Amino acid sequence: MPANPTAAMLVIGDEILSGRTRDGNSHYLAGELTRHGICLREIRCVADDRAAIIEAVNALRARWDHVFTSGGIGPTHDDITAEAVAEAFGVPVGIRQDAYDLLAAHYARTGLEFNEARQRMARIPDGATLIENPVSTAPGFTLGNVHVMAGVPNIFQAMVASVVPTLLGGAPLLSQSLRVDRGEGEIAGPFGSLAAEYPDLQMGSYPFIQNGAYGSNLVIRGTDAGRISEAMIRLAALFPQAR
Amino acid sequence: MPANPTAAMLVIGDEILSGRTRDGNSHYLAGELTRHGICLREIRCVADDRAAIIEAVNALRARWDHVFTSGGIGPTHDDITAEAVAEAFGVPVGIRQDAYDLLAAHYARTGLEFNEARQRMARIPDGATLIENPVSTAPGFTLGNVHVMAGVPNIFQAMVASVVPTLLGGAPLLSQSLRVDRGEGEIAGPFGSLAAEYPDLQMGSYPFIQNGAYGSNLVIRGTDAGRISEAMIRLAALFPQAR
Repeated sequence: MPANPTAAMLVIGDEILSGRTRDGNSHYLAGELTRHGICLREIRCVADDRAAIIEAVNALRARWDHVFTSGGIGPTHDDITAEAVAEAFGVPVGIRQDAYDLLAAHYARTGLEFNEARQRMARIPDGATLIENPVSTAPGFTLGNVHVMAGVPNIFQAMVASVVPTLLGGAPLLSQSLRVDRGEGEIAGPFGSLAAEYPDLQMGSYPFIQNGAYGSNLVIRGTDAGRISEAMIRLAALFPQAR
Repeated sequence: MPANPTAAMLVIGDEILSGRTRDGNSHYLAGELTRHGICLREIRCVADDRAAIIEAVNALRARWDHVFTSGGIGPTHDDITAEAVAEAFGVPVGIRQDAYDLLAAHYARTGLEFNEARQRMARIPDGATLIENPVSTAPGFTLGNVHVMAGVPNIFQAMVASVVPTLLGGAPLLSQSLRVDRGEGEIAGPFGSLAAEYPDLQMGSYPFIQNGAYGSNLVIRGTDAGRISEAMIRLAALFPQAR
């Protein structure tokens, strides 16, 4: 069985780093990719800074099969993602006719002025294909293995819905979990031994505290449902729920 | 005025990348650092993978004044952060007596067995100082400019409260924002011109859609309250709230 395709997410925006806004796009993308059998391996968040964006895009696109970006494609002066991605690829960026026409039609329909700032949203790097924006028209784009999308969550989600189904997925990444009302320290030994017997599966433990008592969510992940079920039966036998 | 110290956050954990868990520690840290005058410049999230952790720790600690990590310091087999950080620094890691004593006393008090798995939480890289964990005792540690903390949010937050006040901060990073009931495309031109007049301030625009109408939050950030207020007065005059 071929390995699952890999991906990285690059969140672009000072507002995340200052603590003003809590990024939710990474979490949304993570769930969508997992369902599609693409394995998200890295997330980065950088500032609205040309050099930082270029460096991150180049590092991530060289390493993973796909890179998804979020943010910085609007009409304001701090929206520099299209230019930075073009520079990362060493290609020119300019107003593209099909994107311009989409936007012109949209603003004609809505009666808003299609001014210079809004025309900036038609700036697309050479060689890119457009990503549809059913919410507010201004498109994202795919250049090479980099998918450049909006930061506004509902637009980001709509763009993910346009792009992800077109990508070659792998076997869906499956998981089962068992909630155990014991602290990690009590289950760590046997859980680790079980994990060692199933090198083809990932087993993780996620502790929590509820009403002052420690508990652990034990998660088994993989692509083979049969193996996961087999391991889960062993796990359940190790930690019977009634103590 | 000296520049503000810089920082990066490294979130460690498969559960974030699979979409199972939504990271909130980065957002919490971002707010705390901003208040303390430390400028968060980058966030990364990597898997529970030794090589990935080592590479990220080394890249980030070379570039930024401080690195904060979250996750992977518990007792289970997938908790490999202490070992990976030690390897990144090229120092040995082993059971440390003071950490061991803290944990032994804790488990004696609570009547739980201080077993091998729990003893693993006393493994601290050589040369590190401990970070207090008032919630569940198992300490974090600081090695060089890297602050290694737990992933469980309330423990992470308690550790941040122990560490951040001890760090040299800069002038607090201040911000003011103006909500404008116009889309970004309408305000982009004048807003960009104003930003160009204040190169010492950062100005960002964050669009939203509410009840089907476009709006923008315009944010001005900097360390000089007087300059921010001056720019904010100009901004408010550009976009009077009553249209």
